[in-house]
Amino acid sequence: MSDFLLDVPRAERIGFGEAVFCAGKSVAQIDAILDDAAGRRLSMLLTRLDEDKYRKLRHGAALDYDALSRTAYAGEPAPVAASSVAIVTAGTSDIPVAREAARTLAFDGYGAVQIDDVGVAGLWRLMQRIEELRAYKIVIVVAGMDAALPTVLGGLIPGCIIAVPTSVGYGVATGGRAALDAMLASCAPGVVVVNIDNGYGAACAAMRVIKSHKTS
Amino acid sequence: MSDFLLDVPRAERIGFGEAVFCAGKSVAQIDAILDDAAGRRLSMLLTRLDEDKYRKLRHGAALDYDALSRTAYAGEPAPVAASSVAIVTAGTSDIPVAREAARTLAFDGYGAVQIDDVGVAGLWRLMQRIEELRAYKIVIVVAGMDAALPTVLGGLIPGCIIAVPTSVGYGVATGGRAALDAMLASCAPGVVVVNIDNGYGAACAAMRVIKSHKTS
Amino acid sequence: MSDFLLDVPRAERIGFGEAVFCAGKSVAQIDAILDDAAGRRLSMLLTRLDEDKYRKLRHGAALDYDALSRTAYAGEPAPVAASSVAIVTAGTSDIPVAREAARTLAFDGYGAVQIDDVGVAGLWRLMQRIEELRAYKIVIVVAGMDAALPTVLGGLIPGCIIAVPTSVGYGVATGGRAALDAMLASCAPGVVVVNIDNGYGAACAAMRVIKSHKTS
Amino acid sequence: MSDFLLDVPRAERIGFGEAVFCAGKSVAQIDAILDDAAGRRLSMLLTRLDEDKYRKLRHGAALDYDALSRTAYAGEPAPVAASSVAIVTAGTSDIPVAREAARTLAFDGYGAVQIDDVGVAGLWRLMQRIEELRAYKIVIVVAGMDAALPTVLGGLIPGCIIAVPTSVGYGVATGGRAALDAMLASCAPGVVVVNIDNGYGAACAAMRVIKSHKTS
Amino acid sequence: MSDFLLDVPRAERIGFGEAVFCAGKSVAQIDAILDDAAGRRLSMLLTRLDEDKYRKLRHGAALDYDALSRTAYAGEPAPVAASSVAIVTAGTSDIPVAREAARTLAFDGYGAVQIDDVGVAGLWRLMQRIEELRAYKIVIVVAGMDAALPTVLGGLIPGCIIAVPTSVGYGVATGGRAALDAMLASCAPGVVVVNIDNGYGAACAAMRVIKSHKTS
Amino acid sequence: MSDFLLDVPRAERIGFGEAVFCAGKSVAQIDAILDDAAGRRLSMLLTRLDEDKYRKLRHGAALDYDALSRTAYAGEPAPVAASSVAIVTAGTSDIPVAREAARTLAFDGYGAVQIDDVGVAGLWRLMQRIEELRAYKIVIVVAGMDAALPTVLGGLIPGCIIAVPTSVGYGVATGGRAALDAMLASCAPGVVVVNIDNGYGAACAAMRVIKSHKTS
Amino acid sequence: MSDFLLDVPRAERIGFGEAVFCAGKSVAQIDAILDDAAGRRLSMLLTRLDEDKYRKLRHGAALDYDALSRTAYAGEPAPVAASSVAIVTAGTSDIPVAREAARTLAFDGYGAVQIDDVGVAGLWRLMQRIEELRAYKIVIVVAGMDAALPTVLGGLIPGCIIAVPTSVGYGVATGGRAALDAMLASCAPGVVVVNIDNGYGAACAAMRVIKSHKTS
Amino acid sequence: MSDFLLDVPRAERIGFGEAVFCAGKSVAQIDAILDDAAGRRLSMLLTRLDEDKYRKLRHGAALDYDALSRTAYAGEPAPVAASSVAIVTAGTSDIPVAREAARTLAFDGYGAVQIDDVGVAGLWRLMQRIEELRAYKIVIVVAGMDAALPTVLGGLIPGCIIAVPTSVGYGVATGGRAALDAMLASCAPGVVVVNIDNGYGAACAAMRVIKSHKTS
Repeated sequence: MSDFLLDVPRAERIGFGEAVFCAGKSVAQIDAILDDAAGRRLSMLLTRLDEDKYRKLRHGAALDYDALSRTAYAGEPAPVAASSVAIVTAGTSDIPVAREAARTLAFDGYGAVQIDDVGVAGLWRLMQRIEELRAYKIVIVVAGMDAALPTVLGGLIPGCIIAVPTSVGYGVATGGRAALDAMLASCAPGVVVVNIDNGYGAACAAMRVIKSHKTS
Repeated sequence: MSDFLLDVPRAERIGFGEAVFCAGKSVAQIDAILDDAAGRRLSMLLTRLDEDKYRKLRHGAALDYDALSRTAYAGEPAPVAASSVAIVTAGTSDIPVAREAARTLAFDGYGAVQIDDVGVAGLWRLMQRIEELRAYKIVIVVAGMDAALPTVLGGLIPGCIIAVPTSVGYGVATGGRAALDAMLASCAPGVVVVNIDNGYGAACAAMRVIKSHKTS
Repeated sequence: MSDFLLDVPRAERIGFGEAVFCAGKSVAQIDAILDDAAGRRLSMLLTRLDEDKYRKLRHGAALDYDALSRTAYAGEPAPVAASSVAIVTAGTSDIPVAREAARTLAFDGYGAVQIDDVGVAGLWRLMQRIEELRAYKIVIVVAGMDAALPTVLGGLIPGCIIAVPTSVGYGVATGGRAALDAMLASCAPGVVVVNIDNGYGAACAAMRVIKSHKTS
Repeated sequence: MSDFLLDVPRAERIGFGEAVFCAGKSVAQIDAILDDAAGRRLSMLLTRLDEDKYRKLRHGAALDYDALSRTAYAGEPAPVAASSVAIVTAGTSDIPVAREAARTLAFDGYGAVQIDDVGVAGLWRLMQRIEELRAYKIVIVVAGMDAALPTVLGGLIPGCIIAVPTSVGYGVATGGRAALDAMLASCAPGVVVVNIDNGYGAACAAMRVIKSHKTS
Repeated sequence: MSDFLLDVPRAERIGFGEAVFCAGKSVAQIDAILDDAAGRRLSMLLTRLDEDKYRKLRHGAALDYDALSRTAYAGEPAPVAASSVAIVTAGTSDIPVAREAARTLAFDGYGAVQIDDVGVAGLWRLMQRIEELRAYKIVIVVAGMDAALPTVLGGLIPGCIIAVPTSVGYGVATGGRAALDAMLASCAPGVVVVNIDNGYGAACAAMRVIKSHKTS
Repeated sequence: MSDFLLDVPRAERIGFGEAVFCAGKSVAQIDAILDDAAGRRLSMLLTRLDEDKYRKLRHGAALDYDALSRTAYAGEPAPVAASSVAIVTAGTSDIPVAREAARTLAFDGYGAVQIDDVGVAGLWRLMQRIEELRAYKIVIVVAGMDAALPTVLGGLIPGCIIAVPTSVGYGVATGGRAALDAMLASCAPGVVVVNIDNGYGAACAAMRVIKSHKTS
Repeated sequence: MSDFLLDVPRAERIGFGEAVFCAGKSVAQIDAILDDAAGRRLSMLLTRLDEDKYRKLRHGAALDYDALSRTAYAGEPAPVAASSVAIVTAGTSDIPVAREAARTLAFDGYGAVQIDDVGVAGLWRLMQRIEELRAYKIVIVVAGMDAALPTVLGGLIPGCIIAVPTSVGYGVATGGRAALDAMLASCAPGVVVVNIDNGYGAACAAMRVIKSHKTS
Repeated sequence: MSDFLLDVPRAERIGFGEAVFCAGKSVAQIDAILDDAAGRRLSMLLTRLDEDKYRKLRHGAALDYDALSRTAYAGEPAPVAASSVAIVTAGTSDIPVAREAARTLAFDGYGAVQIDDVGVAGLWRLMQRIEELRAYKIVIVVAGMDAALPTVLGGLIPGCIIAVPTSVGYGVATGGRAALDAMLASCAPGVVVVNIDNGYGAACAAMRVIKSHKTS
């Protein structure tokens, strides 16, 4: 395990904070990584850290842990400032993935507005918020099942639309492939997509856009 | 081929006009069926009859053929009266399937209103027609790609919604499975679905509903 | 979680009682929804509420819970009157899904007759009931495995046939895709289909048909 | 190409006539095989021989060719005697596959009765023949789409049921996987299945049963 | 549950003993079925009865239960006589499915020889038994992973070969689809296939063959 | 066809030029659209316009057509200015999709640098251009087969990475699903993906980013 | 197209001759590549060059073209010496892929023995050659359908076994996925696999083994 | 269970130590096999032996067990000597599969160097080791998700590259099919692939190469 290499050069090259994906790792492996980070005074974002695993960590008490999104901060995250990112969800079950995106953004210092339960099967809910949404440069859209929300949004707002399919649902929706395919086949031009349930990736994509602004 | 049995008992039992699916049949087989029908003075609907095949039929001149929907009428269809069915399409490429539904309805005497190009990636187009659509008891919705239209409609109108996925599109949309799955996973309650590109089946389903009204 | 919006406008627009899908929601989320509904004196249908989760609800004692269908009623359901809906199952394992449909109909005041174990591998069982079934305007057909029942019924009865595939079975039947595809490819004209195990959706579709009768 | 080995030892060991699958072979390859067979005075069954390819064969005139089933006999087939095999099809489009089975049986000397168009969406057609079918020891059932026929038959007759799915149809039925899975998931006990469109294989399976009788 | 209908007419029509598939049924449902059978003095085969469920049955003590195959006999099975059936497995993990086939045969009075661990990756093991196998009229072949065994056998022996794919393995073999497809695509003529892990179905198919002998 | 609605409100709302997807449309339909556009003096981008179809258009001579990308301009495109977009391809076969992206950008006035044949199986080719690529705010990456290029780029450059899978290749690569899945599963953070072969969509996504800059 | 970069550094680094995959390239592109190679006096292997395309090449006459394998040599291939590679096929339809492997090896100077039609459905054919095959250090096994050959070989010979699935067949075998999965799930230890129909890749893998010998 | 046959003839024929795959076997079965091996003084490798199962074995204390790779040695493994094999992993989660390969090699006496966490999303980590890797004749590459590592390596090093996809990841990466397909579609020539998570098979393939050296 001593071979684990914190990916510091990448963080420097592409400008994101250090992050560790915990799903495939044992408690011992995660604690070793936290030891390493502490020794180097690195802050670190942990994703997919289940509550059970979190409770068994030697370093648990030192983490800022959020059970809903299964994320934790080790060390100090960046101070959060308002940004031009909105995160919208189609239904209540999509909220954990949205929260993972929000926590990832916050770890690097970017605040985000979250608007929940505006799935297009109840269109008036979305319509009440649409003018507000037109003001954001980046909208992360989290939806499962038929995932129709990014298509409707994509025809109404000019900003970047980063669509995140979720594995919510049953039958043909199981696992999220139906939502993923619907998003990729979206009739709205310029909608981009990340992996199923990948709130972290959507946030990183948003940060690539934000950073490109700064360097203009 | 003499074994082919026109399904007259079924037509009587369940109340639809006689129909023949031509895709898997040769020109000779179709002509034989038309001979049989003519001999018995049966009217008949032909579906999936490609223009090439139609042109080679011995009985071709006697048919009322529509190339766009690949349907033909042999003999007299029923006189058409207005009905409470609307057929809506998301995009221009969905029109042939919608036309197959309309021609099937018309063959049995049911008129239908067709509203095209109201896909939800351009929501205002749908919104202009929504009050009109609320008046129909049955709405057949034809859409491919991400197939988001039935979900939006399903939350706005109380009528029966029969969704028909189409095989329009490329990449993940190829073959229509993405559209089918999105419709089956629709967040709007009570949307029902038929096979990909099955305009004929959607019309038959609509007629089952209409007929059930008559017997109330 | 305060963002959760009971979808009252939709219920008014399309005419169904309020329903909440519980599979992706925590005990705390469901209790919060029940608080909200109680405060507004709303009746509510809960679906996919596992017995374990039900037992942990603060509001559990006030619910009318049915373990087989995993449904619960909060508040008063509508008084039940006879309707023209029959629900048939192919086998014993399909009964929970049929019961979800029956409970959804009953919540809105529609009674339904349920006929079980008439799968076509034992055809005489179906034949004994077929004349009875011809009298119903709407037949919800619940079947897994090869799902041949709606095809046989579709050729024998004139009413609306709403087919619900189930995830019963093993090997190629696992998850219900084989049953779903068989139903979508049904040789009987006008059979419509909902998502795998979606008894709730089949009932909503039936209610769309019934309501369209009332407005004729 | 001189490496091609006519599989004479297999034919001797397991008792079938020599057969050559032509789909993946060039005209030149097939002619070379026919040269070899002629030199050894072997009779031979050719399957999947498209009419175009057949017309280009040097040996074409000497073959007994059937376009519908795309089969040909080279040399003398066995004299045909009645057997206890029935071949039934659900629809007209399944007939070519049924004919391939019949021609394979006939090549080895086994006659078979063919009963067409008895798909269960028109159940009365099957019911008229069911007593007749109960008399056969082996029934080859050819069906596409939802492939419900073998399940109904399997519950009504005691004989061996060999189910052949066909690639007839569109949408979810494309390629025949839906029919195959429905047959494998059949609720009727003891139905066995061969590859999609494999009339040849079904006939060989039937001959394995027949031969086992002879040795009893 | 009172609707459950023991399928006695089917058993009479097609000649198998009564069987109940327990996987989708609750302990209460199974006990009710056993009550019914006891009242009518019916013997009955139970399949897919997990040990946990078995231990909770009220009727458990009265059953002849076999944990490996998850089968049980209620009442008296038929007296077992030798038959012309062999059951072969490719590997140790295929044995439970083979045992389900053997127990199903035995319940109806047919003995069978079982030959294990003769997968063709160790060909000499099969070769030692091949002459013995040539003597059987029916060989049930149970294999997972690449499922090459029925192809090798199919070229060497003349009897009926009923192939049962198993869900043994990992990666591409998970769930048994790879084994199923390999068997369906077998290069050996006349191999027939049943659903994944369906030892019961293979035994029923074997009995259809045996019964056809008796009526010759 | 008179129902076809040029989507002018969308173009205004979200800021893209008018575009028409020609793959599912007939020559007559496309000519009708061009008539309409000409009447309203609209410029228009046509995508997926096969050379055969292009040659049959009544309006063909008036179009600026590019056979490689199957795109055409009707009317005047915007004057092109340099932008901060690079388009890279992994191999020669990916160039048509890259060209579709470039032509879409150019139609709206955005120039782009195209760098071809830098697939990572020949890593030095990419390494020679990497410093140059680090300067671009947006990099569209077009790759098929194993689609490893966006992962390598994603770890080396900070800009927005829009990945376009292509349907290049054979075997498991057929249709582009392998490339799509590899891109969605990319280990590099923040890579976003569009549908297979969707150069148009990638360009639209890039323009959403560029436009968001202007409004900062 | 001037961007095309002959991958000379790779050829040097990993030791293979230059190769160009022609399937996705136009006649003009291939001729340009041949111009470039001629200018640099490079020899080159062309793969997947259809006969139609070959006939249209400006450089056609200068190529050593083989229609069966769709390969061509430009310039001088290496002189061929015997090597320790055998290439075996299960059936006649697998020969084109085997030939692609043989031509790739020959281009770099490695001779190979080819043994055809030894599929295990006719086991005695393989058994006649097995002692001969045990002498080869590397055996490339080309098979479609159920692809059982590498499993049988893998248990009998100690050499490197490189399995190539082919897209031969119909039904579940269509496209070669069944063969691929059977090979990956092989019960014989140490069988390695390349993409479907990838004779070129199998030859390159064999050359990596051979070259590793030289450097021992 | 007494039928289990330790595959000693195979081990002799193809030269590997005895191995038992434990995933599908019960504790009792594994103990019986260990009894048999002990009685014959055979050494044996056990794979896929979960820690829970290991703890329940009667023979547990006598085994050399490694929990990470789920492997155990019974009896004496061969003495380990350095070999020309390197095992590289893309990420920490791939290490258990790499360890299975290493333990399999070590059991037969072949040492291997393991290099972890060199996934190409952080390219500099790989570049630091690339010269070292060029020295190995055989490189086993273990990677999940987009599995881009073997493609980059395949263009940089001349040795044999045996790619092992892993089931690491979520969404489209679930189960490892995305990684498998990316490896099979690799643009680098001569990369060979084994089943998902099959570290044992990769080691056996490596040993086939090594043994072929010895016999040169």
